[in-house]
Amino acid sequence: MKLLINNSYKKIYSDKIDQDLNISEGVIKKEEYNSITDGLIKTHKGKNFLIKNPDFKDLLFSIKRGPQIITLKDAGFIASNLGLMNGFRVLDCGGGSGSISCFFANIVGKKGKVISVEKNEKFCEIIKSNVKLFGFENIEVINKDLSEYSSKKLFDAINIDLPNPWDYSNKISSLLKNGSRLTLYIPNTTQLTHSQQDFCAKGFKLEHVFELILREWDVNDLVCHPKFDMLGHTGFIMCFRKIMVE
Amino acid sequence: MKLLINNSYKKIYSDKIDQDLNISEGVIKKEEYNSITDGLIKTHKGKNFLIKNPDFKDLLFSIKRGPQIITLKDAGFIASNLGLMNGFRVLDCGGGSGSISCFFANIVGKKGKVISVEKNEKFCEIIKSNVKLFGFENIEVINKDLSEYSSKKLFDAINIDLPNPWDYSNKISSLLKNGSRLTLYIPNTTQLTHSQQDFCAKGFKLEHVFELILREWDVNDLVCHPKFDMLGHTGFIMCFRKIMVE
Amino acid sequence: MKLLINNSYKKIYSDKIDQDLNISEGVIKKEEYNSITDGLIKTHKGKNFLIKNPDFKDLLFSIKRGPQIITLKDAGFIASNLGLMNGFRVLDCGGGSGSISCFFANIVGKKGKVISVEKNEKFCEIIKSNVKLFGFENIEVINKDLSEYSSKKLFDAINIDLPNPWDYSNKISSLLKNGSRLTLYIPNTTQLTHSQQDFCAKGFKLEHVFELILREWDVNDLVCHPKFDMLGHTGFIMCFRKIMVE
Amino acid sequence: MKLLINNSYKKIYSDKIDQDLNISEGVIKKEEYNSITDGLIKTHKGKNFLIKNPDFKDLLFSIKRGPQIITLKDAGFIASNLGLMNGFRVLDCGGGSGSISCFFANIVGKKGKVISVEKNEKFCEIIKSNVKLFGFENIEVINKDLSEYSSKKLFDAINIDLPNPWDYSNKISSLLKNGSRLTLYIPNTTQLTHSQQDFCAKGFKLEHVFELILREWDVNDLVCHPKFDMLGHTGFIMCFRKIMVE
Repeated sequence: MKLLINNSYKKIYSDKIDQDLNISEGVIKKEEYNSITDGLIKTHKGKNFLIKNPDFKDLLFSIKRGPQIITLKDAGFIASNLGLMNGFRVLDCGGGSGSISCFFANIVGKKGKVISVEKNEKFCEIIKSNVKLFGFENIEVINKDLSEYSSKKLFDAINIDLPNPWDYSNKISSLLKNGSRLTLYIPNTTQLTHSQQDFCAKGFKLEHVFELILREWDVNDLVCHPKFDMLGHTGFIMCFRKIMVE
Repeated sequence: MKLLINNSYKKIYSDKIDQDLNISEGVIKKEEYNSITDGLIKTHKGKNFLIKNPDFKDLLFSIKRGPQIITLKDAGFIASNLGLMNGFRVLDCGGGSGSISCFFANIVGKKGKVISVEKNEKFCEIIKSNVKLFGFENIEVINKDLSEYSSKKLFDAINIDLPNPWDYSNKISSLLKNGSRLTLYIPNTTQLTHSQQDFCAKGFKLEHVFELILREWDVNDLVCHPKFDMLGHTGFIMCFRKIMVE
Repeated sequence: MKLLINNSYKKIYSDKIDQDLNISEGVIKKEEYNSITDGLIKTHKGKNFLIKNPDFKDLLFSIKRGPQIITLKDAGFIASNLGLMNGFRVLDCGGGSGSISCFFANIVGKKGKVISVEKNEKFCEIIKSNVKLFGFENIEVINKDLSEYSSKKLFDAINIDLPNPWDYSNKISSLLKNGSRLTLYIPNTTQLTHSQQDFCAKGFKLEHVFELILREWDVNDLVCHPKFDMLGHTGFIMCFRKIMVE
Repeated sequence: MKLLINNSYKKIYSDKIDQDLNISEGVIKKEEYNSITDGLIKTHKGKNFLIKNPDFKDLLFSIKRGPQIITLKDAGFIASNLGLMNGFRVLDCGGGSGSISCFFANIVGKKGKVISVEKNEKFCEIIKSNVKLFGFENIEVINKDLSEYSSKKLFDAINIDLPNPWDYSNKISSLLKNGSRLTLYIPNTTQLTHSQQDFCAKGFKLEHVFELILREWDVNDLVCHPKFDMLGHTGFIMCFRKIMVE
């Protein structure tokens, strides 16, 4: 993938294109585009653009069906609270677009692995297409309900974004290494209480419950204040650890 | 490093110890400790513990002089906004403990590189000792003022946590690849305005200004409400992109 | 004024009406309406309504050009920080709709007085019409720039909602009783710094700077979470006190 | 009561004192103090003070056992959401210190009335002593459990700050005028759900659920940022209206 960008334009295109790019600021010749990996390019109207590799944020904001700003805010914090490191084997379940799986894949690297379990077939296709966009080879997408998934190898970390995580507490416990971490990403406080009661009864330790409130600011020559529009809520992040020593 | 943990205890020790561990819940024999990489161990009083590799969060919360919860919240979001990917070459400047550099190193992996520039010699020693704790081999710590630092290779991303980032705007511009991202981590709104004016005048594009408010909740059998104690502020995150096409 | 209300309808009408009310749920006879001050009434379709006096919140949400929820949140807090009591003489300047003046008038009562100074003639008309709606007789609306306003009697409290309060600091000082309070309601942090510097130099003591973040929740049989839409910002409230003892 | 204040001192004393005031900045003669209602006074060391009537905020911050900043933030918003006006008859139940009752009394004025019902005898004494401090003659304190309280006259507004408001829903309904408002002030989200279910089943309409987050800022010559210490939570405010038309 290549990012075509200037101060008023930003779009991701394929590495190689078959036709000239015809954008509002002019035409970019395919031969010229295809020959540049990182550098400036001109439209026939003389308008300059920069071509470079898209970075993770560019890719995230170009995915299909993605609540990107949510991922940007919460996925990083979930990954931090899972303690993810290079080489980790992570299970990610639920959460439609696959952007959190991509986030994890970016951290655990080639030695690591992300298994994304999603029972909805359509969502599976979306996840697969987004994984392809990012180019990650360390994500496996499995079209199953979590209750039907099993694995010989245990996981170093699990993240669940399902409305009824307590229905899977035994399954999750059987899939997670002892001493390893589990995060639940849930929207309702009623689910907080339900999850706390169920998972603690199953031997998980609840270490933290967080919500992360993102506030964007307008800062320019005239103003410096929080934006008036704000996303009031995404979800709560519950941080459990499986510690079974008896 | 090994993590010794049960439901009421958590501490990181060396891989090998020379003396028996004498903790409040009893004595752990060194021979036994040294022979276990991942599994259960008993004190002489019969109290069970789990030994395993510490993960990133374990390490982060054990570093010296670290405002860990700040790092956990803001560092992940800074890394996301820098678009960090495997293989990136990142410059991190300021921010005493090195925890943000470690955060970056965890993402960019072995093919990537983090250069941490810190003018205070004492802070440099702290950063080096924390880098050692994490075991990262892709961080280089340089004891210089940013104005005196130069590099033949440009950077894919730069994060600055200094009180006067505008004093370094030309230097930063000269070190950053075209099209790449810069984050400033700053506590005061007066610095927001000053930074916006200076960096935009130098050709950087200000894409976002964020603050991330972390709210922790108490959830147990009796209560479900936000905690009464709260950290009201850490810093603002300014997200710039260097886009120079003329 | 009378409030006509049931579980799906709410509107304020005059005490006496000349024509039958024709609303979507049927017709209400004028004679019947006019004869009821507080009680049930039926449309010709047999749909029940309640007639009663509108309260302050009913009135506030029916005013013209009013950002009511802002007033509801900030006006009460401004009044609290001004220490308003029965009998106070208050100056309110700026803030288009007059809703804050009405808020103050509700507290200071008949023995008290609110002077609302507004230089824009159109806004003055809006304020006057809203004052009439509330029925307050203790508000005087003056169509002048604050710099041209003078008063023989000093004020017990002053609230200013103008973009450049520092231009009026001497005027405000000359109008406010010694020991009394001043609030500034301002949107930008740059104005915070400017106001702090100017008013403190003029002998005012800055006691607090607040922002009040209102979060609304969805609570019903199915969900319990903060609403997704949120107003991210209204204004900062600066609380000064004039204490001149030398 | 008289407020004695300068830039570094603030305290409320009786109108008349029997002994000279001996404070760290010198002695104030009782004769001189007693003769001044509003004006400057000097200690024997020549240090100037101002004497004036305390305002509502002065009184609020001087009450016994008072979480004043909570009252300042939430009480005004509760009063706004109750639509309080001059002449209202209000029931306030629970909430130890009586500061919310005083807040209401300040708005409803002499024609209005606040009944404060508190079952704990000690708290009753505290409320009474605080009411005396404020000098309100329109507050009646009743030492009863709400379930045992009855009144021939209905209320224009009711505020409840009790852990189990649903136990009193029938009682509250019998005490509140049709069309009038009820607020619940509660700390836990589990209580939100419980209250919503019970009160809605009893015919109350839930209009809003709010939480008000107060953020204080440090603004001086050097800094402009939110304070680091913050009160993360006080309580949720549920706004019901009794609308019974069938």
